Amino acid sequence: MTIFANTPEPPYWAVIFTSLRRPGDDQGYDSTAAEMMRLAASQPGYLGVESAGGEDGLGITVSYWLDGESIAAWKAQADHLAAQERGRGEWYSAYRVRIAKVERDIAWEK
Amino acid sequence: MTIFANTPEPPYWAVIFTSLRRPGDDQGYDSTAAEMMRLAASQPGYLGVESAGGEDGLGITVSYWLDGESIAAWKAQADHLAAQERGRGEWYSAYRVRIAKVERDIAWEK
Repeated sequence: MTIFANTPEPPYWAVIFTSLRRPGDDQGYDSTAAEMMRLAASQPGYLGVESAGGEDGLGITVSYWLDGESIAAWKAQADHLAAQERGRGEWYSAYRVRIAKVERDIAWEK
Repeated sequence: MTIFANTPEPPYWAVIFTSLRRPGDDQGYDSTAAEMMRLAASQPGYLGVESAGGEDGLGITVSYWLDGESIAAWKAQADHLAAQERGRGEWYSAYRVRIAKVERDIAWEK
């Protein structure tokens, strides 16, 4: 995985997942997060992911998708559903999910 | 600023700014970033911002806006243009900007 998602020409879709972690269980969280990243990458319509998390417990993960159908299918994927459940039960104190259609993008490199 | 952006009912717009920092000049960068956060919050159509950055230099800042016009006006704001220029000259090695229309959102709290 490169650090930026190698997305195609717009339009495509973004799922902006902003989360606040509870303290503790970093190992279980990290391994499940890595597994979900791998699993997402194998789903139909997946275009890439970008993720950043700071010391303050706030994380932002943006995944990119071909269309709304591929987002709905990923949301309902069985292992992902189990991870979402565990996220609410153990790892997160709050989160936001926003589904957005990317209309324009700009890439800049030095 | 709360940790999550307190956005209204969709539709609204998101600017997803993903950046890779060059090492060094943390002080100049941090103060300009904080100044831009304050300045953005005073612009017409601003709805909020969420930001996360890790040790690996990858940062994601998502700002939320009422419409495309408010995004265009913020992009062209004079102090912001100067900060963008300095970003390319001094602080970033690469970035992506994606303009997206938020169609749906979900908020969850423990």
